[in-house]
Amino acid sequence: MEFQHSDRGLHWQERVTRFLEDKVLPRAADYHAEVHADPSRQPPTMEAMKAEAREAGLWNMFLPGDHGAGLTNLEYAPLAEAMGKAGLWTPEVFNCNAPDTGNMEVLHMYGNAEQQARWLTPLMAGEIRSAFLMTEPEVASSDATNIQTRIERDGDHYVINGRKWWSTNMAHPNVAVTIVMGKTDPDAATHQQQSQIIVPVDTPGFRVERMLKVFGYDELPIGHAEVVLDNVRVPVENLIAGEGRGFEIAQGRLGPGRIHHCMRVIGCAERALELMCQRLLSRTAFRKQIAEHSVWEQRVAEARTNIEMCRLMVLKAAWMIDQAGAKNAKSEIAQIKVAAPRMALRVIDDAIQAFGGAGVSPDTPLAELYATVRTLRIADGPDEVHNRTIARLEYAKHGGRPVR
Amino acid sequence: MEFQHSDRGLHWQERVTRFLEDKVLPRAADYHAEVHADPSRQPPTMEAMKAEAREAGLWNMFLPGDHGAGLTNLEYAPLAEAMGKAGLWTPEVFNCNAPDTGNMEVLHMYGNAEQQARWLTPLMAGEIRSAFLMTEPEVASSDATNIQTRIERDGDHYVINGRKWWSTNMAHPNVAVTIVMGKTDPDAATHQQQSQIIVPVDTPGFRVERMLKVFGYDELPIGHAEVVLDNVRVPVENLIAGEGRGFEIAQGRLGPGRIHHCMRVIGCAERALELMCQRLLSRTAFRKQIAEHSVWEQRVAEARTNIEMCRLMVLKAAWMIDQAGAKNAKSEIAQIKVAAPRMALRVIDDAIQAFGGAGVSPDTPLAELYATVRTLRIADGPDEVHNRTIARLEYAKHGGRPVR
Amino acid sequence: MEFQHSDRGLHWQERVTRFLEDKVLPRAADYHAEVHADPSRQPPTMEAMKAEAREAGLWNMFLPGDHGAGLTNLEYAPLAEAMGKAGLWTPEVFNCNAPDTGNMEVLHMYGNAEQQARWLTPLMAGEIRSAFLMTEPEVASSDATNIQTRIERDGDHYVINGRKWWSTNMAHPNVAVTIVMGKTDPDAATHQQQSQIIVPVDTPGFRVERMLKVFGYDELPIGHAEVVLDNVRVPVENLIAGEGRGFEIAQGRLGPGRIHHCMRVIGCAERALELMCQRLLSRTAFRKQIAEHSVWEQRVAEARTNIEMCRLMVLKAAWMIDQAGAKNAKSEIAQIKVAAPRMALRVIDDAIQAFGGAGVSPDTPLAELYATVRTLRIADGPDEVHNRTIARLEYAKHGGRPVR
Amino acid sequence: MEFQHSDRGLHWQERVTRFLEDKVLPRAADYHAEVHADPSRQPPTMEAMKAEAREAGLWNMFLPGDHGAGLTNLEYAPLAEAMGKAGLWTPEVFNCNAPDTGNMEVLHMYGNAEQQARWLTPLMAGEIRSAFLMTEPEVASSDATNIQTRIERDGDHYVINGRKWWSTNMAHPNVAVTIVMGKTDPDAATHQQQSQIIVPVDTPGFRVERMLKVFGYDELPIGHAEVVLDNVRVPVENLIAGEGRGFEIAQGRLGPGRIHHCMRVIGCAERALELMCQRLLSRTAFRKQIAEHSVWEQRVAEARTNIEMCRLMVLKAAWMIDQAGAKNAKSEIAQIKVAAPRMALRVIDDAIQAFGGAGVSPDTPLAELYATVRTLRIADGPDEVHNRTIARLEYAKHGGRPVR
Repeated sequence: MEFQHSDRGLHWQERVTRFLEDKVLPRAADYHAEVHADPSRQPPTMEAMKAEAREAGLWNMFLPGDHGAGLTNLEYAPLAEAMGKAGLWTPEVFNCNAPDTGNMEVLHMYGNAEQQARWLTPLMAGEIRSAFLMTEPEVASSDATNIQTRIERDGDHYVINGRKWWSTNMAHPNVAVTIVMGKTDPDAATHQQQSQIIVPVDTPGFRVERMLKVFGYDELPIGHAEVVLDNVRVPVENLIAGEGRGFEIAQGRLGPGRIHHCMRVIGCAERALELMCQRLLSRTAFRKQIAEHSVWEQRVAEARTNIEMCRLMVLKAAWMIDQAGAKNAKSEIAQIKVAAPRMALRVIDDAIQAFGGAGVSPDTPLAELYATVRTLRIADGPDEVHNRTIARLEYAKHGGRPVR
Repeated sequence: MEFQHSDRGLHWQERVTRFLEDKVLPRAADYHAEVHADPSRQPPTMEAMKAEAREAGLWNMFLPGDHGAGLTNLEYAPLAEAMGKAGLWTPEVFNCNAPDTGNMEVLHMYGNAEQQARWLTPLMAGEIRSAFLMTEPEVASSDATNIQTRIERDGDHYVINGRKWWSTNMAHPNVAVTIVMGKTDPDAATHQQQSQIIVPVDTPGFRVERMLKVFGYDELPIGHAEVVLDNVRVPVENLIAGEGRGFEIAQGRLGPGRIHHCMRVIGCAERALELMCQRLLSRTAFRKQIAEHSVWEQRVAEARTNIEMCRLMVLKAAWMIDQAGAKNAKSEIAQIKVAAPRMALRVIDDAIQAFGGAGVSPDTPLAELYATVRTLRIADGPDEVHNRTIARLEYAKHGGRPVR
Repeated sequence: MEFQHSDRGLHWQERVTRFLEDKVLPRAADYHAEVHADPSRQPPTMEAMKAEAREAGLWNMFLPGDHGAGLTNLEYAPLAEAMGKAGLWTPEVFNCNAPDTGNMEVLHMYGNAEQQARWLTPLMAGEIRSAFLMTEPEVASSDATNIQTRIERDGDHYVINGRKWWSTNMAHPNVAVTIVMGKTDPDAATHQQQSQIIVPVDTPGFRVERMLKVFGYDELPIGHAEVVLDNVRVPVENLIAGEGRGFEIAQGRLGPGRIHHCMRVIGCAERALELMCQRLLSRTAFRKQIAEHSVWEQRVAEARTNIEMCRLMVLKAAWMIDQAGAKNAKSEIAQIKVAAPRMALRVIDDAIQAFGGAGVSPDTPLAELYATVRTLRIADGPDEVHNRTIARLEYAKHGGRPVR
Repeated sequence: MEFQHSDRGLHWQERVTRFLEDKVLPRAADYHAEVHADPSRQPPTMEAMKAEAREAGLWNMFLPGDHGAGLTNLEYAPLAEAMGKAGLWTPEVFNCNAPDTGNMEVLHMYGNAEQQARWLTPLMAGEIRSAFLMTEPEVASSDATNIQTRIERDGDHYVINGRKWWSTNMAHPNVAVTIVMGKTDPDAATHQQQSQIIVPVDTPGFRVERMLKVFGYDELPIGHAEVVLDNVRVPVENLIAGEGRGFEIAQGRLGPGRIHHCMRVIGCAERALELMCQRLLSRTAFRKQIAEHSVWEQRVAEARTNIEMCRLMVLKAAWMIDQAGAKNAKSEIAQIKVAAPRMALRVIDDAIQAFGGAGVSPDTPLAELYATVRTLRIADGPDEVHNRTIARLEYAKHGGRPVR
């Protein structure tokens, strides 16, 4: 057991951190101004940063093995934290933003050569963006078997009908393609009913019905859409891996993606803690620095402790995926999926309280961070479902019925 | 001891509830559409509802004694709850919305005849709106002695310089006047340094620098402003009550206002619980109604229990103000100020979780409710300061040094 | 609505409080010494106090209506709080201790004249003590339908076989009789299977197998027993109310009993808060009174707030029982059953922390209070089951299936 | 970074676990019976187990470097967890029990050759036991500067006067010696006032005034004493390291000792979780295994998650001590000191709830575990003081004043 990162890992951390400090954060204001001025146009500042990042070799670092930068999940995790701390808009600079990352993984692992050439290549080049259409507004998507979207074979095509929402990236100026989950065979065994299929956004019948705000934030330029699929026809070649493999693909995509999410969330928590300390040290109430009021000592200490514990857990889960695959890290992945956002929400909420009115205003990033992290207790399965998984794995150690 | 409301109280509750159901909620969509279409114009639907409410005698019910509807705080409290449940925009219908209510109380209790004629009369008629400028961005306003705004005598005028924020109502199309808190004598004894003064919004040097969002919400048509007072000159007649009485006036305004806030918050919690139950009963996961998953039973039960306990406490505090004045209910008022928003936030957060993606979206009122209620742990003094008050009163029972 | 107790209620509170201060607390040390010296003998000090209390008319105050002191549940509740604050051993002084109170209620409401003459009269005179045998070690007693003890008719007798535990009072020197719950007809409809029957402790086959400690406390002179009923024969006349009415009787007993328990628990919390404040004011760390460290301000304030809210809720539930009967106060009774012990445990735990080592030692009553109150989250149904009841009543408001 | 233990570490874990399973747990009942029969006599079963453990080389494993078994703190930590899971009485089998371990460390690091020969040798041989006398009943010992015990030079002797409590091990049949902390120079700089000195328990004037129970438990054969030191005279040679170095020695002893405590606590939590799962799987309520009620899924999952996170943190702190010394792990050590007992208390409390009445009774180890672990939020400094340390280290990163 060894708690120091490898030299290689540290080197990558230093490179990414330095790039963020030198090339990204100084251009944050420009970038946001461009987004604000015209959200329908890809900000030139982003493209410039992307080009520099790619040039510097800081590109596609999320993808394990030879196709990305050759990093393990354990090595990549601190880079995701650094991006999360710098701002949740920064992963795009490195072509490391969700859900493109998950879609690239899916195409990388399950796509055929043609699918890869057509979609994976431009995604990995950062030329286009993509969305993943899974959650549906009309059913409890926490139970994946509830999904209602139909993917029906009709000769050389599949015809897709359904309604999806929280389709992230759909406002992105460069969004070109989506992966859609739906049922090809509602009568098959529970986990063979669903498939995943590639649907370009310009396919007739594919319609963005509205963009969804999160706690009042539009989260541009990314955005979350409600999408209607109305007799959308795509060639059978667009099916990924084969009919009935949708659930399997969905499971596969979630392991590393959750490491990324959780590490970014830990980065958010670090940022909130940093802001909180700075604020507490800068103000005085009742003849004493607020930092010295012991109620704040307790909160700062608990924030530090909980961040540390959570980070170790995420790193361990990353290490387990590297060593033994996501299937064998099922409990650990579920644990961090629940623990990291809860921990971060508490830190951010305390930071908001430390800032008073500034905490809920746009003068700090805290309120928006809170909103974004709050969605992570719901997205990719709510806490309750992940805790169910953890508990069942625990029961199984004592003779409880086995978990699928 | 008696836990049933008086017949008179019940009668008022019924009238307000019926009015809300019959006259207000059916016009909610119209009202919001008008606000959305042009926030700078007072929505005609609101004016129509106001006229009907006034006609029906449901007007200025917040003001105890003869000048309002003659209700006690205890009688008014459930009306505030009903409005809070119906929507935080509805109190304006009854001319019962903060901060106008507080300003009317101040003018009613401390204003002279001239001030009342000039400002209180149109406020009570609902013809103009007002703001209260206390909190400042540059200091920890939790400690009121930190306030920096200066009110300096210069002949027949006072000259005001300072920067205020979270000045609620400043976006309202009808806002006409503000009450400003600042120091007339920084060298006086701690609680004699400050004064309150009437400043019309069109006074030269009075400048709205920007409107503040809460989380991502602009909270129109009300709005919260950052205001700069740059050599603002007003006649000495605008001073309320006398130099050095600002702190005393501020204290006085807070008792009933907190009852109103807390009861509205309890209404918000009731609404969230109602929505949560409806949602849990409407969806199925893992072959069972979500309502039947026992983790939700626990949350619903705790929501119900905490709402009930909190409501009783607010009603008791209202009763104490009625019986013995706000000064003698200092601990109780502080208790509800802390307890009610915390309770409601937890209920709303659970409701968000029950709704999943819909909970953070604009499809339910939950995310915006969360944002608004979150500010109440900060506004009018943060939790920590109220808890300090409660603790000191508790210590005093055991020989701790007396609380001012 | 009125939050002041009636003059009559206040008068009783004053009498009980004065009696506790003047007659009971000064003899606490003597009483405990006697118990310690010989737990098998009724302490003479207790008998002396009982005689004086009875003489003073402070006797059987728990029993509503003419047979007791004629108090309502609402009037009695603060007396239970006062006893709980004085010490959980003090209710016996007033013949107001559980489970004798519940047993007296049952015999009062459901017993026939003969049963009342034989058992109720000496119980109400404080001459004998009793136990209630319901919970069983071998099943989840949270679900009352699990109960396995059999009560089988055999001619003029019932034969009882089973194993019970947590039979409180079984160590009491004066314990003479028990009421046993068991199944007379396991094939009847769920809530008609059980009956309650009177079993004197000297009946052959009735055997105390062991006394149970709570945490490390034996809770003498009361004690909690594990009891084996091995072919215990009692005459059919001992059956209470009729076969199949056990569940109904059990429900009936629980309403007022929970008010008593919860008010005593609130008394415990008040005592813990009082001790905590005194301690915090008496010691210094890091050059400041510990009371002034703001983390303690928060805890003291939350203790005060939570006690106040909880007390109001218990009083309201008492009032509802008085007004409309326990059946119509089902949710409120369940709410306080969960809320009061949780609240008190938190206050006591904070008080323990304030005392440091003394808090877990016998030098304060806190650790033993914690242990005793902890059992109340389990006894008479665990939190989870009461929350289930509350939730189902809540769901029923929105069309959820009705609660029995 | 690597989350697998080294082969060497795993080998030791296997040895200790096997020894516990094969040689210790089967004799637990015998051991406890012997303690119960005569707590003043060292149980022969313990001596037999000790002899076998020493024979097997499983002896003094806590002591890093050559004098013990040559293990690092990181390697030893899982062994402490295994012992904690097996039962808090088992570390004595391996001569690894507190406070002897801490005393041995002190003598090892700060004792001179004579002191080591006289006391360290028999302690390491397990022939005698020792106590550490620091906490005092009359002051807030959380602030070490409050300590009042005086150690005054008088010719060739020091004369010690004071009152100590929570002196663990003082009931042990083999207790022979204590290390006492007290002030040699109350006028010196804050952290130079105190010294540590060796005081055999048979020194005239050294008097055990009483043994202290923890939540009703006497914790025999170890026991916690209140000790009076009344003009206790010991030769000047008994002083450890030199006058004024008491604080320094105390700091030094705490690092590894906290790792041990926390890992044992994690073992306790594992045991509670195991018992909880077994119980939930074994009982049925409302027609369903209790394990399947989703409220229990959430609790089991949170227990698993929190145990995992906490264990990683303790292991990291152990690793940091190994790599850089306890001084450089100050924040991490404080973090686990607070986090581990809190986490374990919650798991144990949930397990108690799962067991119902059995949980608070002696039929499970849970209630006693709760009591013991509860003391760890107080012993060696309360949570509040450790959180203060963590916060100040955090503030220091942002310009807060440096922590000593």
